[in-house]
This record gives sequence, C-alpha cells and structure tokens, in this order.
Amino acid sequence: MAGTDHAKRGLTGVRDDGPAIILVGPQLGENIGTAARAMLNCGLADLRLVAPRDGWPSEAAYTASSGAHAVLDQTRVFERVEDAVADLQEIYATTARTRDMVKDVVTPERAARDIHAAHRRGSRCGLLFGRERTGLTNDEVALAGTLLEVPLNPGFSSLNLAQAVLLIGYAWYAARDQGGAGANTDWDHGHRRIDAGHRRARAEEIQTFFDHLERALDGAGFFKTPQLRPTMVRNLRNLFHRAQLTDQDVRTLHGVVTALTGRRMDQLG
Amino acid sequence: MAGTDHAKRGLTGVRDDGPAIILVGPQLGENIGTAARAMLNCGLADLRLVAPRDGWPSEAAYTASSGAHAVLDQTRVFERVEDAVADLQEIYATTARTRDMVKDVVTPERAARDIHAAHRRGSRCGLLFGRERTGLTNDEVALAGTLLEVPLNPGFSSLNLAQAVLLIGYAWYAARDQGGAGANTDWDHGHRRIDAGHRRARAEEIQTFFDHLERALDGAGFFKTPQLRPTMVRNLRNLFHRAQLTDQDVRTLHGVVTALTGRRMDQLG
Repeated sequence: MAGTDHAKRGLTGVRDDGPAIILVGPQLGENIGTAARAMLNCGLADLRLVAPRDGWPSEAAYTASSGAHAVLDQTRVFERVEDAVADLQEIYATTARTRDMVKDVVTPERAARDIHAAHRRGSRCGLLFGRERTGLTNDEVALAGTLLEVPLNPGFSSLNLAQAVLLIGYAWYAARDQGGAGANTDWDHGHRRIDAGHRRARAEEIQTFFDHLERALDGAGFFKTPQLRPTMVRNLRNLFHRAQLTDQDVRTLHGVVTALTGRRMDQLG
Repeated sequence: MAGTDHAKRGLTGVRDDGPAIILVGPQLGENIGTAARAMLNCGLADLRLVAPRDGWPSEAAYTASSGAHAVLDQTRVFERVEDAVADLQEIYATTARTRDMVKDVVTPERAARDIHAAHRRGSRCGLLFGRERTGLTNDEVALAGTLLEVPLNPGFSSLNLAQAVLLIGYAWYAARDQGGAGANTDWDHGHRRIDAGHRRARAEEIQTFFDHLERALDGAGFFKTPQLRPTMVRNLRNLFHRAQLTDQDVRTLHGVVTALTGRRMDQLG
C-alpha cells in the first residue's frame, strides 16, 4: 500500500492525493526547508523547485526543515515553471497582490475542496508559490487556471513562504475527509461536469496549443505592436485557462487554428 | 470608533472582538516577534507574555516581527498565568499532546466559531500557548476550559509557536463574519476578478463572435462531416461560454479569427 511505502521513506502520514507544491525561484534554502516542514505537517510531500537561487541540494534547507528530510530527499528541481507543471491538470497561483488578469480567485478553504474533488475525478493539482520578495511574474501566473488568496488583515497581510504553505496545506489537510459520499456538492459551486471519456487537459497539452496559436498569430501579423505582444498573449492564455479545457477541447482548438490558417494539422501527428 | 483608534496606533485592521494570545514562558524573543506578526496578519493585537525567559522588551522580538511593532508596543507582561488570564472568561489551552485530563478538545475551526459566539454574548476569550520545548504544565492547562488541538499529520505534527498562532488566528479571522448577516459569501465560493474598465460580455456580443468564428470555419472547410457540425459548434460555444468572456476578450477573439483568416475586421466596424 502506498501509505506503507511512504512510511518506509520517512514520509509517515503522507497521502497520495495531495497537490504538488511548486516553489518558483526560492531565494533562501532556509525557506525551502521550512516550507518542507509545513508540507509534512499537512501530509504533503511532492515538492518541486524552479531555479532555486542558491542551488540544490541545500544544507540550509535540511537544517531548517526540523527533520522533514524525506520531503527534501525527493524534491525535484526544474529550470522552467512550464516543465515543473507539465504533468498537472489544475494549477493554482498563490498571490497576495492584485493582478490585472481575469481569473477566479478562491480562498484556501475553497481551493481545498476543489482540489479534493479534482483528485476524485482523476486530475492532478499543483500550487505555485512565488519568490520571497517579488512573487510570481505575470507570465507565471498565466500558467494557472485559478488564483488563490489567503484573506488576511488587509492592513498587514504579508506572509513568509512557509506560512503561506502551511495555511494552504492545512486547509487541504483539514478538508481531507469531507465530501466523500456526497461528492455532488462540488458541482453546486459551479464546477463543470466532464463527459465520460474526457479528462482535463494537462498543462503540457495546453502549452502545445498555445504554441500553435501564437505561432499562427505571429505568422498572420496579429501582433501589430510588438510591445503589446506579451500582454495580448497573456490575456489569450488566461481566457483559455478559464475555459477549463478538456483533452477533446484542445484537439478541437488545434483543428480550428489549423483550419483557419489553411495549414496541415502537422502538430497533431 | 475603535477601528480609527487602532489605526492611529499602527494597528490597522485590528478588531476588538479577538481573543487574547497568551504566550507562557516563551524562550526566544524571535518567537515572540514572529507570533506578533502572525497575530497582526489575523487582526489580533492583545498579546500577553508570562515570564518571558529573556526579559521584556526584546530587541530580537522587534526585529523578527516584520513590522508588527504596534502589537509589541502594547504587549503586557505578567509573572503568573493566573494574572494573565484574570480578566478573561473563556480560555483555551493549545497543545499538541494528549493530556490525561477530561476536557473538551476542539479544532481551530470549532474554537473560532465558539470564540465569535462567546464574544457576541459578552465573554472575553484567551488562547494559552506553551513554552517552545516543554509546552504548558498540567496546572496551566487546568486553567483552561477547553483544549485546542490543530489536527495535523500525526507522523509529523510539531509546529513552532508562530505557526500555531497563525493557524489558530487564521481560523478565527476566516470565521469572523459567519453567523452574522453572511457578508462573506465571496470568500466561501470564490469570485471572479474583472479589471476595472472591463465587464462581462453581453450575450449579443458573444453571439456576434460565434457567428464570425463559425462563418470563418465554414469558409475554411473545418466541418468536414456535415452531420457532426451541430455538435462541434455546440462544443465550441460551450468552451467559450465557460471562459466567462469580458467585452475585451470578445474583441481580442474577433481579432484572432480575422488575423488567422487574413481578412479585414469588417465585423467590428
């Protein structure tokens, strides 16, 4: 059983249905360690780092982890956020700041319920946490379908990395056994039922579609003002993220772009 | 008004109805500072210390508080726990360990609801937090009517002082408007953020876009099997409906179709 296997590796109490925690550009090893501790407190162990400033592995991380070594032992490092989330289907960007993007904004409690529900229908989830000082870039936020904000005293709302991981991880852990039998309440909050035979698209599939679309738009001269291109790309990506695309949707959209540009669907093989 | 008075003292967002946080025998000034920070995050400011090991005031506490100085400025110090809780009516002892005492044990969420309810009936509440290493003595726990335990991974449940204050304070803060007029439904269900200057697109605008897209797809020979056209059109429309398009999104999508088909944006006038 998975639980036994986890225990052998020093991950007692870790569950297989938790979200991945993705720390983007963490600066201090100490913060990686305290985040790992907070994860293990909440039964989470899938820690992923994107371009940690001081490299990996980090002795400071191990020292600060209060013994959560097993989480750090299996931490994976990626160069790009896109690669770190490639296998995930539902991605949340944690941010304390207002962004000029149109996305759902949810609390930790709501995200927790949604993540459990997503797991029950076979989707893998991940939570993006930004750099200590500067957070996530707009392009990184654009990879996520949903923004997660911890509602705190607006006059004093800054959290350190480990505290943010802890509050959000705890909400997930506290909600772990809710809604097993009456899973239908998930849909009451506006979730979409996915037809049998379909599944939420993976991040890498969506990225491939974005590449296709943006290449086509470049070829068609859509971006007339080069300095506006990043914003327009981001808005388009956000728009499609909000649609919670299935694998079938992505194939359809590839077909739309290909048909409109009059080219072969060579991307789909 | 109390809020204004708080703001003058640097306590923006602090509420009068929060529980007192009583740290019993804290050893490190740093932990007092990070606890103060966590309190202010959650709109709490009534910090009381019982016999802090390194004395008071503490420079280490100020340094570690990330600017929550106003909480530290008004912190009161007592020699005995009994004095620190003298004015309080409902006292919770926080502990991660099982005690051989017959007391109610509640979660942070349950305690939060009860503390709000207690305040409404005029009772002052307080939360006891023990020493970093040894916790509360049995005599100290006995001062409390209720035990508060944070349910965490039983294989790895230790929290530092500030993290315990944060999780419990957050539960109180998150429950602050429940049982009132129900002001906080936004956070219960999440909400969508729309930029200033944009609005949800009207149905007629979306329909005009669908007409544009479908005409372009017909022209491009996208619908190869005529009997499948209605289903494919419906799926595409659903996909875009799910994105909850703004007026700006619709303009962008018109532009995308026009660019890809290489035609003028004559639909937009």
